[in-house]
This record gives sequence, structure tokens and C-alpha cells, in this order.
Amino acid sequence: MKLIFLGTSAGVPTKQRNVSGVALRESKGKGWYLIDCGEGTQHQVLHTKLSFHSLKAIFITHVHGDHCYGLPGLLASAGMGGRTAPLTIVAPAGIKAWLDATFDATQLCLPFALEFIASDNLPSLEFENMAVATFGLSHRAPSYAYGFTETKMDAALDVDKLAQKGIPRGPLWGQLKQGFDVEFGGERLKSHEFLIFKHKPRKVVIAGDNDRPDLLYEACAGAQVLVHEATYTEAMAEKAGDVGHSYAKLVAAFTESVALPNLVLTHFSPRYQLSPHASPSIEDIRKEAQSVYSGSLYLARDFSEYSLDKTGRFYEVAGE
Amino acid sequence: MKLIFLGTSAGVPTKQRNVSGVALRESKGKGWYLIDCGEGTQHQVLHTKLSFHSLKAIFITHVHGDHCYGLPGLLASAGMGGRTAPLTIVAPAGIKAWLDATFDATQLCLPFALEFIASDNLPSLEFENMAVATFGLSHRAPSYAYGFTETKMDAALDVDKLAQKGIPRGPLWGQLKQGFDVEFGGERLKSHEFLIFKHKPRKVVIAGDNDRPDLLYEACAGAQVLVHEATYTEAMAEKAGDVGHSYAKLVAAFTESVALPNLVLTHFSPRYQLSPHASPSIEDIRKEAQSVYSGSLYLARDFSEYSLDKTGRFYEVAGE
Repeated sequence: MKLIFLGTSAGVPTKQRNVSGVALRESKGKGWYLIDCGEGTQHQVLHTKLSFHSLKAIFITHVHGDHCYGLPGLLASAGMGGRTAPLTIVAPAGIKAWLDATFDATQLCLPFALEFIASDNLPSLEFENMAVATFGLSHRAPSYAYGFTETKMDAALDVDKLAQKGIPRGPLWGQLKQGFDVEFGGERLKSHEFLIFKHKPRKVVIAGDNDRPDLLYEACAGAQVLVHEATYTEAMAEKAGDVGHSYAKLVAAFTESVALPNLVLTHFSPRYQLSPHASPSIEDIRKEAQSVYSGSLYLARDFSEYSLDKTGRFYEVAGE
Repeated sequence: MKLIFLGTSAGVPTKQRNVSGVALRESKGKGWYLIDCGEGTQHQVLHTKLSFHSLKAIFITHVHGDHCYGLPGLLASAGMGGRTAPLTIVAPAGIKAWLDATFDATQLCLPFALEFIASDNLPSLEFENMAVATFGLSHRAPSYAYGFTETKMDAALDVDKLAQKGIPRGPLWGQLKQGFDVEFGGERLKSHEFLIFKHKPRKVVIAGDNDRPDLLYEACAGAQVLVHEATYTEAMAEKAGDVGHSYAKLVAAFTESVALPNLVLTHFSPRYQLSPHASPSIEDIRKEAQSVYSGSLYLARDFSEYSLDKTGRFYEVAGE
């Protein structure tokens, strides 16, 4: 599985950072999921190897513009690029009504169907290779986190168990190994009961804007990676007041408390400069998080790419 | 006056070209006007010297997304950047309803007032240094051209006429010279009747999508510059069918017919490559236009900057 950050700035784009958007790419094939779609996300995608033909679903964390204003243009471009396959959009209910109003006002008629699923119902969804669970957060607007867990892992057949059941070697073994349940002797045999998994399933949690990381306790069970906003440092958050955002130490302390091994921070206020000598600097956010977190900490930049391999090892992929 | 192209691609952005947006900058001060606002226009502005504080008005030519999807984000960013001055938006009526729906759906509350003027009424508008007239075009949606004429030109006082009228040298002379009408001896004296203009006023016409350039006959009277789409060459336009766009020869022949000295083409279908060796190449559009136009022809690129000086001379400003 891969994470590719398409935008890492809070509220407004800067010369170096676009507003929110993260691509989660499956380990096999070209399939990917888009989490948030700030204005200019489709422009960022042009500079990656991602294709709108392989986009499996879009997840919007909340209705604020820096997380969704890129949706109409991205959908229009996917259509003009020839996409015809239906597309699932998981988003707060307001997004569907807004897109409908937008299509109507701007004469946009997409050549593919959209299937909307309201995040507000906290849906649990199954895609071909991925299960996605939804979790509620705390922000000025209803905001959600999405937990992505792979469902097709490398596994060996439990041949002893298959022999015990008297299942003959052949196509049924193949189907079970590929993760499909099968009928045998009038019984429904569940694939996962005949497989020996070599590793835990990979799991990544990607959260929207949120001032209470502790709400992610359940979401983070079994996850190797948490992606969370850290809009400010603690001192700056106090100045900003009650705006529904997290500061670095708050997120990092929570992540430490659940012993989650990899934390990627993003959604930085534009006031934080890239240079370590600037004030405030993005390094202030890093230092604050590091002061309370002993896991592997990453501060995302636009086009940062991370890989989570099947053994659960997470690392940044070197840029080209 | 300056023109800065922020986007020159039709329909979808490419790696080299954003969707539509043109900045028209006044000759004095920092004031500017934005004509069309495709997605990512605010990102393009970040790479210029333009400031949202100095933006005087936005003109939208028509409701298609590649001409307006950047509006919500640009307005939000102007607000977050501290703009408080009211902003005029001249646009087809549907844009106001769509922006209202967008503000509502995404909890956007701007810290400045928007004044909407419907292009559909073909308004003639007066800004501090600029008169703007609206002209109807032909496209799949109602589409408009805007003609910008400067109203404060360099001029000398007609001292003989002032003496004849018995107007004493002093503050009244100063006010008349600065373009203000004054009261004298119970009479209203019009500034322009006491000024000797050194040059014709500068005039630029910027058109939206349009398949009938001849509709611009009236708009082009006295203009030094026409900015018009040339989405295709003639052969490609035939293949594309009846989509409401112009091809290079159609626009160029019209511009030749009204002896307009400078034509800037933009809004190129993404299939036209920059390289002269590619097929189709943007040079195909240039050649087709040149074959029927004897004036100065320009094919805009993103961040192309042109200057129209007070003598009416138009030229491309070299990049930095």
C-alpha cells in the first residue's frame, strides 16, 4: 500500500503546498482511493502516475472548502478523460446536494454514475481489496476519519484442514486461496478459515480536521499508520482559539498512548515555513510532536510518497 | 495596461496550462480585474505579483466549470488573507445562485461583501479608471465578452478654452486636469471638454467561449487588442462537431476584417502540444491564424504577460 500526499496545507494553498488531498494506492494493480479533494487536487494528480480510470472511490472528511472544492473539476476531468465506470463518493450528506447544485448551475453532465454514501451513517464498506470503516471526529463541521484495511493478503492454504474436510485438491483449493468462499458438500466454506496468513492485514487510518484525537481510539486498533492534521503547535493553537484543530503535541501524545508505530502529520497552517531557520518553522511542529512520541514520525510534504509493505514496515519512498 | 494569462487550456488543465483565467492590470497602481476563474486560478495568482487586496472586480464569461470552478476557493482565500473591501462580480445569473449554494454547503462566510451584476443584462459599468461594456456571444451556454476602456488618460489642459471661460488658474484647473467635473459660475464644467488628450484611450476586448466572432463587431470598435478563444484548427473543429467553439481561422479572419491590430489567442484544446514537431501542435493554430491575419498575432501561454502602452503599442513582456 502507498500513500501519496497531494496537498498538505491548511485552509489556503501556498507556493509549496496545496490544500488537502491524499491518495491511497493498493498494493496490487493501479487501484487507488482519494481522501479529500481540495481545489487543485486534479492538477496535483497530473504530476503523479495516478489515473482517474483507476480511481475506486473518493472519501471526503468534511464540507470545508479546502477539503472539497476540487471535486467538481476532478469529476469533470475524469469524464472528459473518458471514464465510464461508476464512482463511489463517501462524504457528509451536504456534499451530494452541493455537487448536484454545481452540476446543474454549470451544465456538467458526467458520463459515469456517482454512488453517494453518507459518512454521517458511519458506514463500513467493502471494496474489492479493501475494507473501509468510518469514525466520527470533533470539528466545527461534522468530520470523519476513514480506516482502510486490506482484505486480500498473502496466505498459504491450510492443507491439513482441507484434507480433514475431504476437499479434493483442484479448483476449490484455488478459489479458497484467492479469498473466495466456496460451496462443498452442501456447505458454505469460508476462505479465511482455510488460510494461514503470513502477516497481519495492513491498516491505515486517515483522519479529517479534528480537535480530539482520543476519538480515534477504536479506529486505531491494529493500524500501522495514522495520518492526522497538526495545524499548529500548542502555543499557536492557543492564539488561534477554539477553531476545532489539533496541535502537534495533542496528536502525538494520543498516538503514543495507543502505541501506534507510524504517525504522518499534515494540514499545516501556511504560517509554518519550510526553512528550519524561519519562525515559525515546520520544524517547530516536528520538535513538539517528537517530544512526546517515540514512534516513527513523518511530516508530509506535497508529493511525499510512503510505502507500507506487507510485513507492516512503513517508510518514505525517495523522490524521483 | 497589462494582461497576464493565468490559464490557457480548454476544458481540462494540463501540466503546462491551467484552465481559463486572465488578469487585466491597470496602468497606474496595483488595481486589477480577473476575467474568468477556472479551478486553480488562485494557485496561479500566487506565482505572480497580483494581490487579492487590489482585485477590483471579477468577470465571468459563462457558467462552464473550466471558467468558474476556481471562484469559491479564490474568494475564500481572499477572505482568509484579510480582504475586507467589497468585491464586484459580473457574471451570468446562475453564478450567484451557485456561489450562494456553495457558501451554504461549505460553511463559507466571507469577511467582505460581494456585489453581483448579471452579465445577462449586458451592463455598462464604470470603475475608478476603467469603463467596461458587455457583449453577447454564441455558445452552448449564454456567453459574454467584456470590453475594457481606460477612462483616465494623460491629457493637457486646453488653456485657451479655460481663459475664454474666465476660469482662474488654481485648484479648479487641477481638478479638471485630473478628470473631475467642477462647478464654476453656476455652471457644471465637464473635465473632458477642457482636456486635450495625447492618445486614444486604451481598449482591450476579452471574449468568452464563442463560435461567432462576428458578434464582436461593435465590441471591437476602437480596440487595440482582442483576446479570443481558438480551441481548434478548422479541420479539428469539423471533427469536434457543433460544440460552440471557434477555430483559429474563423477568429483571425474576423479580426482582420475589422482591422484590429493585435489578436491574442487562448483556450487551446489540450491535444495541441507545445512542441512544433508534435501533431497536432500549437503551431498549427498559429499557422492557420497567420494565413488570414496581417496584424500582430500572439498565442498565450500560462504566465504570458503583455503590455499595452499609452500610445497603443502592444507587446509581450519578457519573462523573468
